[in-house]
Amino acid sequence: MSQAEWVYLDGEYMRAQEARISPFDRGFLFAQAAYEVTAVFAGKLIDFDLHLERLSRTLSGLEIDPPKQDLRELHAEMIARNGLDEGLIYLNVSAGMQGPRDYYGPEQLTPSLFAFATHKRLITDVARDGITTISVEDTRWQRRDLKSTQLVTQTLAYRAARRAGAFTAILHEDGVVTEAASANLWLVTADGTLITRDLSSALLPGITRATLLSLFDETEIKIEERAFTLDELKQGAEAFTSSTGVVIAPVLSVDGVLIGRGQPGPVTRKVQAAYYAYIGADRSRFDWL
Amino acid sequence: MSQAEWVYLDGEYMRAQEARISPFDRGFLFAQAAYEVTAVFAGKLIDFDLHLERLSRTLSGLEIDPPKQDLRELHAEMIARNGLDEGLIYLNVSAGMQGPRDYYGPEQLTPSLFAFATHKRLITDVARDGITTISVEDTRWQRRDLKSTQLVTQTLAYRAARRAGAFTAILHEDGVVTEAASANLWLVTADGTLITRDLSSALLPGITRATLLSLFDETEIKIEERAFTLDELKQGAEAFTSSTGVVIAPVLSVDGVLIGRGQPGPVTRKVQAAYYAYIGADRSRFDWL
Repeated sequence: MSQAEWVYLDGEYMRAQEARISPFDRGFLFAQAAYEVTAVFAGKLIDFDLHLERLSRTLSGLEIDPPKQDLRELHAEMIARNGLDEGLIYLNVSAGMQGPRDYYGPEQLTPSLFAFATHKRLITDVARDGITTISVEDTRWQRRDLKSTQLVTQTLAYRAARRAGAFTAILHEDGVVTEAASANLWLVTADGTLITRDLSSALLPGITRATLLSLFDETEIKIEERAFTLDELKQGAEAFTSSTGVVIAPVLSVDGVLIGRGQPGPVTRKVQAAYYAYIGADRSRFDWL
Repeated sequence: MSQAEWVYLDGEYMRAQEARISPFDRGFLFAQAAYEVTAVFAGKLIDFDLHLERLSRTLSGLEIDPPKQDLRELHAEMIARNGLDEGLIYLNVSAGMQGPRDYYGPEQLTPSLFAFATHKRLITDVARDGITTISVEDTRWQRRDLKSTQLVTQTLAYRAARRAGAFTAILHEDGVVTEAASANLWLVTADGTLITRDLSSALLPGITRATLLSLFDETEIKIEERAFTLDELKQGAEAFTSSTGVVIAPVLSVDGVLIGRGQPGPVTRKVQAAYYAYIGADRSRFDWL
């Protein structure tokens, strides 16, 4: 994983270390900023329309005007300039610099745009070997369906996980799972049913989550969209996370309790194979499946 | 109200329009930043020790190392350079630029500092005439005792208030008041008891709130620290907000319902007089009392 050289900032492409914004930007003062992270595989954007749709919903919720730039062209240019074959493109659309600090701001909030790219393998050892997790109380705000930069809870959860020797955290409210720190969570029950929480303002509507739901019909995998508890998770047969950045990661344990046998299970493997085929990955990339 | 010319950014004083930070600053990417706004009256900082204490608690909660700078000296320099007689000094302590975007970040998060000043009258027409409010559901995160830059709820609440023709918003959860959009809220009951919500992670421990509590003994005003509902507020005799920026503002109405007679009441006036005396304001500044 390495940061690509060229970033985009309000109309200009420049080297990452040269990018500068005003500290009066409302993204910095109030966290009034939307963001998206889109995966690139074999030089192509994955599910970009879905990212654009979600960005549009977040911007509307944060009362930021839609950007005038052609975001598809911007992403294509980021791929081209950085020679990005596989990785991620991060896009931040903030409420911008609107003069002195003022909660109200002008009626129309003209956005500022910032984008950078990361060279990163999407199918990795983590996908093969799985991850360990801890549970952390979900202290986020109530509009988690909006992808804003209010990410302190996630940051602290990741840091707590690292201190505990785990890879990431499972967020929960009074024992009811919302999602993982920056991923949706999926549980496989003993009878092979796949469960992931139904969408609401309690969690982020993940793009990989949406695509996974579209890949299987009932004859292949029975899927239920509903909330589940940490106890159910600990008693599950398998679990995995889905996200743009880590894609599909088998969850081996939570708070030191093994899920199933503490190994990636057959349903997780089936889901991985289907998703890797969906993005067009060569079978050699996941010969461990 | 006007922004002062000189700002401070990581060791340097410069003109506001020249200040630039990296968009990779964790304050921008994750809202991992603490802030304080301290009042200046007659060229002197008000309750600065209390602001420093709260900043320290916020930084600890956000896992940001304490800044090495002498913050009292920094504030004195901001007052001197800007010729600030009356107004506010804003200080932002972010988790800083720590390389490429990464939720974990390094174990030690060395902070970045940004400060600006605002020339502003602390005792104004608003204090004399009062404000109107609307009620808005409090969607903030669960650690509101930390003064972080996760301020989207407050921003949207102020914007909703303006659209409704009101000055600010009262935040509530299922009808139970937490505080105002960037101020603590005080209710006066028919028998003259002053009520403000008791401290917890549900609300910000306001500095002006703390000082007000210290100014009166039971023989002067009976004070209860407890939660109250929007209904109690609407049936109250008087109400006011306390904050560093707007100090003490009589609340005339909420959602169009008058509180008491919809005019600043005698207990509010008594509180204002005591606080203005506390900061050393000349009687001529509040001859309308």
